[in-house]
Amino acid sequence: MNGAEVLLRTLVNAGVEVCFTNPGTSEMQFVAAMDRVEGMRSVLGLFEGVATGAADGYARMTDRPACTLLHLGPGLANGLANLHNAWRARVPLVNLVGDHATYHRQFDAPLTSDIESYARPVSAWIRSSTDARELGGDAREAVAAAAQLPGRVATLIVPADCSWKEAGEPVEAPEPAAWRRPSYDAVVSTARALRQGEPAVILMNGRALRAPGLELASRIAASSGARLMCDTFTTRLQRGAGRAPIERMPYFGEQAAEILASARHLVLVGSRPPVSFFAYPDTPSWLTPEGCQVHELASPEEDPVEALESLLDEMGARDAKPQLQASAPMQPARGELSIESVAQSIGALMPEGAIVSDEAATSGLPLGPATAGAPPHDWLSLTGGAIGQGLPVGTGAAVACPDRKVICLQADGSAMYTIQSLWTQARENLDVTTVIYANRQYRILQFELMRVGVEQPGPKANSVLDIGHPPLDFVEIARGMGVRARRAESIEDFNRFFGAAMQEPGPKLIEVPV
Amino acid sequence: MNGAEVLLRTLVNAGVEVCFTNPGTSEMQFVAAMDRVEGMRSVLGLFEGVATGAADGYARMTDRPACTLLHLGPGLANGLANLHNAWRARVPLVNLVGDHATYHRQFDAPLTSDIESYARPVSAWIRSSTDARELGGDAREAVAAAAQLPGRVATLIVPADCSWKEAGEPVEAPEPAAWRRPSYDAVVSTARALRQGEPAVILMNGRALRAPGLELASRIAASSGARLMCDTFTTRLQRGAGRAPIERMPYFGEQAAEILASARHLVLVGSRPPVSFFAYPDTPSWLTPEGCQVHELASPEEDPVEALESLLDEMGARDAKPQLQASAPMQPARGELSIESVAQSIGALMPEGAIVSDEAATSGLPLGPATAGAPPHDWLSLTGGAIGQGLPVGTGAAVACPDRKVICLQADGSAMYTIQSLWTQARENLDVTTVIYANRQYRILQFELMRVGVEQPGPKANSVLDIGHPPLDFVEIARGMGVRARRAESIEDFNRFFGAAMQEPGPKLIEVPV
Repeated sequence: MNGAEVLLRTLVNAGVEVCFTNPGTSEMQFVAAMDRVEGMRSVLGLFEGVATGAADGYARMTDRPACTLLHLGPGLANGLANLHNAWRARVPLVNLVGDHATYHRQFDAPLTSDIESYARPVSAWIRSSTDARELGGDAREAVAAAAQLPGRVATLIVPADCSWKEAGEPVEAPEPAAWRRPSYDAVVSTARALRQGEPAVILMNGRALRAPGLELASRIAASSGARLMCDTFTTRLQRGAGRAPIERMPYFGEQAAEILASARHLVLVGSRPPVSFFAYPDTPSWLTPEGCQVHELASPEEDPVEALESLLDEMGARDAKPQLQASAPMQPARGELSIESVAQSIGALMPEGAIVSDEAATSGLPLGPATAGAPPHDWLSLTGGAIGQGLPVGTGAAVACPDRKVICLQADGSAMYTIQSLWTQARENLDVTTVIYANRQYRILQFELMRVGVEQPGPKANSVLDIGHPPLDFVEIARGMGVRARRAESIEDFNRFFGAAMQEPGPKLIEVPV
Repeated sequence: MNGAEVLLRTLVNAGVEVCFTNPGTSEMQFVAAMDRVEGMRSVLGLFEGVATGAADGYARMTDRPACTLLHLGPGLANGLANLHNAWRARVPLVNLVGDHATYHRQFDAPLTSDIESYARPVSAWIRSSTDARELGGDAREAVAAAAQLPGRVATLIVPADCSWKEAGEPVEAPEPAAWRRPSYDAVVSTARALRQGEPAVILMNGRALRAPGLELASRIAASSGARLMCDTFTTRLQRGAGRAPIERMPYFGEQAAEILASARHLVLVGSRPPVSFFAYPDTPSWLTPEGCQVHELASPEEDPVEALESLLDEMGARDAKPQLQASAPMQPARGELSIESVAQSIGALMPEGAIVSDEAATSGLPLGPATAGAPPHDWLSLTGGAIGQGLPVGTGAAVACPDRKVICLQADGSAMYTIQSLWTQARENLDVTTVIYANRQYRILQFELMRVGVEQPGPKANSVLDIGHPPLDFVEIARGMGVRARRAESIEDFNRFFGAAMQEPGPKLIEVPV
């Protein structure tokens, strides 16, 4: 069996079932092998950023790696921005990057490049295979590296001759990964700190933000009086009615600093001390105040649920009750079409089990409160700040969870980085409803321009932040890629289109001028 | 004056007049400074691959660098594929990549990444500034590095605090770059080889492919009997009626090898010995036969015109006449709509001075002969093999040459990598006519699948090469980005739409099912 087939079979053995791909000549053996290997679904993207973002979304929802299949250095490069987000999300993901045949590299053909240099910033593990007979073992190690909890990006570079040569037999799955156990010392010292009754913030990210972790943390907060918060951008947050709610740390550093100002203890569960997203003149980057003690209850690599359980025990608070979100049935909004009314209608109409891929940027500000009491759902956000994540992550989440409704809440500017996602949604008939907030500006940058000290931007500066000339027509763009689309001219339109989209499966897009 | 302003003014002093940008928060000082700096035009792209490809196209047409302005590691990453093409094209280009403030990097905020690792594979020169007061000097050195002939990619990473701090005064332009002089020994030995009358191929790329170099080379070929050829993919080829024609080396290695099989001498002018674009099982990568002597008349860094002139002198062939392409007025085609008839009509209708950005892939095969006798024009092709080049390069060429018609001949699959280019064309009202060859397949990969030995691809393999389900509607996509668009259903439609587009300025798109 050739190398490509051995590699794919080894991945399937290890539980990798989906390949998000945009292949080229050096990956043709994999394309051919797909037909010989049961159990590997191939999902085509028209651009690599769709494939890598979809692999991230898939991993967020399954906790298992998908693989990508990318074409040499430039193909990987096109996928890097969303790999950056996946790396920050700490999800498992296996990149397969085709390369020229081992003996062909020396000739520096046009597509030759230093693939490892591209891969390094986003990969916890990189290997460039050198021998077809080692490809099975390489694949196994790649999966093992990716599966290290909570998850990592592993990149395997596969020269074309390793794919086409005889490679023996596929390799069995690696041992399942286990969490690192949290340190008992950390549990004891955190309990001691929280028992003092001083102002404390518990800051969480990662798997702690699933329902069990949230409920444990809520009980700890209830018994200690600590404030329960999550990072501004989270990999996957389970929220909605019946779940323990959690406050989101504000995006702007000065607001986060204000929250932390009075804290004497900061307890970290899969998170790190908050820092300003960007630096600004005369504004601090580090937001934890002097005199606030930082307690790392669980590092991102340590089991957060075990850590929270141990802490609850150590505090003698097994009987503490969690605060659970009441169901807050809302009516779809009336009146003006605005980001507030759209948020209200989304909260009123979204179904149980919805998966929200949130890249709404400034248009998303009212979404948190408006959806807090909606039926239970998962919320995926922009972990690495590299825009163009929302549509691909929603696409991958829909591949992972065909029985759930995916809702992409998407700013217009960010949408245009990976707009090709819509075509994959149409091709795979994925159950994704995309809401495009068309404010026709890079509005966040208008804020940021002020925040870096520019009070009166001139016409050239304003022009660079204005994406309304010409206006983007997302209805036409979506239809051009095979996705049914409508523009909501009123909140009544929005309620009708979005309500219908929640009832019917299949990809749809709603453009909302806001 | 702050660092951003010093940097921009220094670039303007050095002749950099256009900034292709997609900025973010860390680049806001540059955005603000644009209004204070005369002489720097800012051209916004909705995706960084548009900006970098446009900077490449601009450089191909002006021989001067534009700058890009990109947002941190992910922004650079999105532009890498077209930087790869620019690097292979050996054009001058200055990347400005914003970074977090120097003191902010340590905090590993979400958008922190190893920018240099991304930049290295495509950059001949990289610097990460450390001090606002050195920014002017850094900018000057970046331009000097980029301007080294024939041209290089230079990447300057600018931490946000260097942009906003007081930075003194702008710096004067660097000395103009000079060509390295070709070696007299190479001239003598090449002349001796060509005088023997043995079969010889002269293979050229780079600046040798402008009219003066072509004419010189044609005279050398006429006097020596050598076969005059250029690389398959060239940075900028001047061709058409009245110019010395040149044969293009075939893409497939076995065809190139056949041409070289009988050659006893291979003379290189700004090129390298041809190698197979990809490796294939049991097929050689190196295409120059044993017993063929390679003569490097001029390396890519040496003045090709001086080398060709010296060679002509050394051969005593000053009186040799060049072969010049006769004007071959053609009629627009009739009959079937096909890649052949479309090529004929393009050749018949394209105006003098047209700039063709060619990413037509397999649909472009008949274009060479069909346009050979058209009015004089420039032909830009896919230098690095990283697809998604055609629309951005055409966009940048149109910014560089507002008085010339730009024609993008574009395969549908490749178009989708940087389709956002259309919006920049509309926004800047660029005189670009795009022809989309909609064959709804990655057809080149269907060939390649066979060539790597897959005779009977299965349904999954065929599906991955099929981009017709759902069909892309480029007319709707273009309209969605503000570009007037039509679909030609017949060759008569095509003649009418394309003919009108050649007469009227402004961006237009014609989708052609082929």
